[in-house]
Amino acid sequence: MAVATQSVEQLCINSIRFLAIDAVEKAKSGHPGLPMGAAPMAFVLWDQFMRFNPKNPHWVNRDRFVLSAGHGCMLQYALLHLTGYDQVTLESLQQFRQWGSITPGHPENFETEGVEVTTGPLGQGIANGVGLAMAEAHLGAKFNKPDAKLIDHYTYVILGDGCNMEGVSGEACSLAGHLGLGKLIALYDDNHISIDGHTNISFTEDVGKRFEAYGWHVQHVPEGNTGLDAIAAAIQDAKDVTDKPSLIKVTTTIGYGSPNKANTHGVHGAALGGDEVQATRDHLGWTYPPFELPPQALERFRQAIDKGASAEAEWNQTLATYKTKYPADAAEFERITSGTLPEGWADALPSYTPDDGGMATRKHSYTVLNALAPVLPELIGGSADLAPSNLTLMKVSGDFQKGKYENRNLRFGVREHGMGAICNGIVLHKTGLISYGATFLVFTDYMRAAIRLSALSEAGVIWVMTHDSIALGEDGPTHQPVETISSLRAIPNLLVMRPADGNEVSGAYKVAIENRNRPTLLALTRQTVPNLQGSGIDQVSKGGYVLSDCEGTPDLILIGTGSEVSLCVKAAEQLSAEGKKVRVVSLPCWKLFDEQDEAYRESVLPKAVTKRLAVEAGTSFGWHRYLSSEGDMVSIDRFGVSSPGGTAMEKFGFTVDHVVARAKALL
Amino acid sequence: MAVATQSVEQLCINSIRFLAIDAVEKAKSGHPGLPMGAAPMAFVLWDQFMRFNPKNPHWVNRDRFVLSAGHGCMLQYALLHLTGYDQVTLESLQQFRQWGSITPGHPENFETEGVEVTTGPLGQGIANGVGLAMAEAHLGAKFNKPDAKLIDHYTYVILGDGCNMEGVSGEACSLAGHLGLGKLIALYDDNHISIDGHTNISFTEDVGKRFEAYGWHVQHVPEGNTGLDAIAAAIQDAKDVTDKPSLIKVTTTIGYGSPNKANTHGVHGAALGGDEVQATRDHLGWTYPPFELPPQALERFRQAIDKGASAEAEWNQTLATYKTKYPADAAEFERITSGTLPEGWADALPSYTPDDGGMATRKHSYTVLNALAPVLPELIGGSADLAPSNLTLMKVSGDFQKGKYENRNLRFGVREHGMGAICNGIVLHKTGLISYGATFLVFTDYMRAAIRLSALSEAGVIWVMTHDSIALGEDGPTHQPVETISSLRAIPNLLVMRPADGNEVSGAYKVAIENRNRPTLLALTRQTVPNLQGSGIDQVSKGGYVLSDCEGTPDLILIGTGSEVSLCVKAAEQLSAEGKKVRVVSLPCWKLFDEQDEAYRESVLPKAVTKRLAVEAGTSFGWHRYLSSEGDMVSIDRFGVSSPGGTAMEKFGFTVDHVVARAKALL
Repeated sequence: MAVATQSVEQLCINSIRFLAIDAVEKAKSGHPGLPMGAAPMAFVLWDQFMRFNPKNPHWVNRDRFVLSAGHGCMLQYALLHLTGYDQVTLESLQQFRQWGSITPGHPENFETEGVEVTTGPLGQGIANGVGLAMAEAHLGAKFNKPDAKLIDHYTYVILGDGCNMEGVSGEACSLAGHLGLGKLIALYDDNHISIDGHTNISFTEDVGKRFEAYGWHVQHVPEGNTGLDAIAAAIQDAKDVTDKPSLIKVTTTIGYGSPNKANTHGVHGAALGGDEVQATRDHLGWTYPPFELPPQALERFRQAIDKGASAEAEWNQTLATYKTKYPADAAEFERITSGTLPEGWADALPSYTPDDGGMATRKHSYTVLNALAPVLPELIGGSADLAPSNLTLMKVSGDFQKGKYENRNLRFGVREHGMGAICNGIVLHKTGLISYGATFLVFTDYMRAAIRLSALSEAGVIWVMTHDSIALGEDGPTHQPVETISSLRAIPNLLVMRPADGNEVSGAYKVAIENRNRPTLLALTRQTVPNLQGSGIDQVSKGGYVLSDCEGTPDLILIGTGSEVSLCVKAAEQLSAEGKKVRVVSLPCWKLFDEQDEAYRESVLPKAVTKRLAVEAGTSFGWHRYLSSEGDMVSIDRFGVSSPGGTAMEKFGFTVDHVVARAKALL
Repeated sequence: MAVATQSVEQLCINSIRFLAIDAVEKAKSGHPGLPMGAAPMAFVLWDQFMRFNPKNPHWVNRDRFVLSAGHGCMLQYALLHLTGYDQVTLESLQQFRQWGSITPGHPENFETEGVEVTTGPLGQGIANGVGLAMAEAHLGAKFNKPDAKLIDHYTYVILGDGCNMEGVSGEACSLAGHLGLGKLIALYDDNHISIDGHTNISFTEDVGKRFEAYGWHVQHVPEGNTGLDAIAAAIQDAKDVTDKPSLIKVTTTIGYGSPNKANTHGVHGAALGGDEVQATRDHLGWTYPPFELPPQALERFRQAIDKGASAEAEWNQTLATYKTKYPADAAEFERITSGTLPEGWADALPSYTPDDGGMATRKHSYTVLNALAPVLPELIGGSADLAPSNLTLMKVSGDFQKGKYENRNLRFGVREHGMGAICNGIVLHKTGLISYGATFLVFTDYMRAAIRLSALSEAGVIWVMTHDSIALGEDGPTHQPVETISSLRAIPNLLVMRPADGNEVSGAYKVAIENRNRPTLLALTRQTVPNLQGSGIDQVSKGGYVLSDCEGTPDLILIGTGSEVSLCVKAAEQLSAEGKKVRVVSLPCWKLFDEQDEAYRESVLPKAVTKRLAVEAGTSFGWHRYLSSEGDMVSIDRFGVSSPGGTAMEKFGFTVDHVVARAKALL
């Protein structure tokens, strides 16, 4: 059908398709198949339903859109360009997947305005969407008044077969069904093709039935390539069902329009090639050269600018009314959503002296969380079914449940990975909410992909990880982290904290709350540790510091983290009594320490002092950077053992006597 | 009801309960609730259905039993003791969760005879069960004859709410339904309680309906505490349905019998306490002191010994017939199931000279897999929907599908975590099968819990991970591993291999195949690398070696892995041309290198040569162990960028010129 006879809707849809086709072709890399197949549903959604303002991508009450099938990112970039986002120019589309461009190979929220979350690793986006919808529900329940709704938007997700195969999506969607998140609407691009070929080689389950089992409202649009009205009707029905999230299965053809590659995995992840691009142009009657668009289509898409301006203006009117009628709530709304921490919040952080009784650092964490909960109402989080062990309940709040979205204690169930992606979504709602997620440290392995994405996508989530060493005891090696802390320290942009006592726990939370653009992971003990002389809240912000020192140049530096710092202190006392000059350095956060200037680092770990003994109840992996060739380490470079924690620590050499002996061997 | 009036079945069930109660009480640690509630289903299963020989836990055709809810391990230890496994004595039960005991806090296959897989991390066991059932189906299809079935057993799993909330179980069970694994039978202990309390705070989905959506046969036994006949009937029905896996939801009461703690999370993970133990004894009419058992119960359980001996004798008769009729097949069966590699298998490994054209190491991996596939019929594996990228298809075989279980190419779908646990299950079937699982290196994050368990449970799986650095290019930082290799190297008992060229890929596979009790992870390039002078298959087994050397003592050692070794070689050539004495060390596997004796390590990296430059397209994290204080490193300590791979490598300094410049700065 020639351009002249195509409806403006058809031109719009084909504009999306050819921007994707031509950008991928120019880059010689990318995924044209999804944008070509999903263009109709995306057009209907963005044209008829999505409320957003292209000229203010940060408008707080915008509908959120997530492309969970992130490899199809040209779909999203095309929409952003077509609807008038300033940053996403035609030139930027021509730089798709090139060094320095704002159009990377998968959507990255920190690169591109209008991209809410970073997707690509499959299943994450839909789970982020659950978090976005939870943030919306929470803020709405907290602030909305019958006559003035400040937060009242939808979260739309397009996901594919791959997302639906991933366990993380199942976890998050099961919880979304439980919570009855009625404003979460997911369009499932059911195209039957994945990289290995037809999905019938591995994926023949009834996805719709599964989502019904989760408690979702499920619809099916069989003619997803052409049935624009059916897609629109389904989205409207989904909006009308307010007590359940909605899945709309839209059956499409991957690579729609490509005469030779449509409906094959060949169109999934590679450029069509010049001949097939032309064949597709011919087949779809598309006579425009690459990156040129029909004016009618552009005009239609750009209506989003006026519509968006009106929508935001109307909302501003609502806000003005709200400010007049509910000034205190309005002030709090503006404080939170602007990401401004309340004046003096850190005064709530408890501090300790050595006379205060020792406690497990997970208990200190509980104290801090409950000290902060009243002064930081933006704090919202919970545990993956380990609340009594992780100690993460805020006493001032009830559980976030269906109809009780104003509450702040999240009950994730045994769904670590889903929890991780949901926490990312809550923070990336970008309305000032500070989410936290908790489990045993060793089970970060279940959610590592989400933790990595929190670091990559600059989401300041707080990961509260307890039971941080073999000292947890009887549960045994399946539950005892050994390599876990090291493996997390290796992740860029993640602050890994292993505080030694009450003051350091307060300091770790201070860092975590203040770092809104990078996540912090707290590794906390199950067992009791003493409060130490020399520890302090502010010291933690430097990552490492001299906890106790000798006169003059030390003969030896003992370096510890977390529960092993007190072991170092006791060993130092014993060595000092024998006339040795010993310094103890507490190193709760390597990354922060490495960020200090050289003078500070030298003042803590002078190069001249080459006799250093590190003590940590974990692997030595990574520690050599702080040890000279004359250094040594008390560590555990094997899996742990089921036994009482004290026995395990003793057997693996975490005793004062053993630390002293190893120190003496260095001197 | 007093002991005298209890049926022998009731005595058996209560024997399980009180062994669990008393062992947890003695340890003052553990999980009594599940064993108390699941004892009836476990008794029915082990008494009426399970075919096993307590006196030969290794009988190849035994039914496999997996306690996926591994925290309830006292259930399994009680059954092993009661049915007569020699290793699991009453004394060992009294040592539950103690240092050096064979009754650790979660089931560990490497500690306890009769424990097939290591569970505790939730969801893993049921996914392992899918792997066990796949191994059974494969060997049966391969070896069974109409008149002689050598492998013909069931895989039974008990799983709990927690397992059903985890994404990994959903992934594996969806695949099990697709594959129609009729001999996989899972009993779901539906007790409504998890650590945070009643499951209705987070888990209200319809689990049965979800499994129906997966294609499972689903039944419900509502009276799981008392309905022994109903449980038995359901298991029989499950066996009768041969084309679908079966889920039997058995509704039970956690902590059944405890008057004050049953049906509460208080009984989930802590000892009952002396008073409640006595109250439970009173309530269940149990007058036996701790660890004493009714003789009638023991007699009933110990019938397993004769039954097991008969079953194995009958099977031995079948094997004898089979040997007579099908001697070649029998020999192959015995070779494979005994874990004996065929004579000369390693001769199939290709070797290369620098004149051979360069290839990506993932392509070398493809060559090796296809060289080994014909000579190692025990090789079985596949990719999580990235077969065309990971290059893991064996050309000699078709796809393992329903009705085509004799095939060896596994199609996991986009289910990395499920793949990991399934591969573990296949190897832990302990019948000589060598499984491999593949995805992009960065997505090891999705399956890290399963990789860790392969290392902990001594399962020699081969993890084939491609696209191993920023050089993969356009897909960008979500897909580019940076910290990934370091984080994997930190895992105990896992051999992480980053081969540099064709010979090293062959060498890496040689190590992987030979290491049947520890897993090997291969990190392979997307991009082409040259074949190097000096590389070799055997050198890889030492983990690191001198690839090229100078006359006399080197001024500098360049250390590289994988794709960066050739960069080191070229830099060394340039430096040599300028009169510098440079050695190049290839370090494909740190763990193997660290295992060499000191003389060898010194011969490769002499302490006296302190000027060392390491080059790896990943984080520097962990590398300091091989660098002196005078060493340096070309690394990437941030997330990558979407751009063509060559550009990314160049921008991040992975060029000959930059390596030369950094080397000169050291000299």
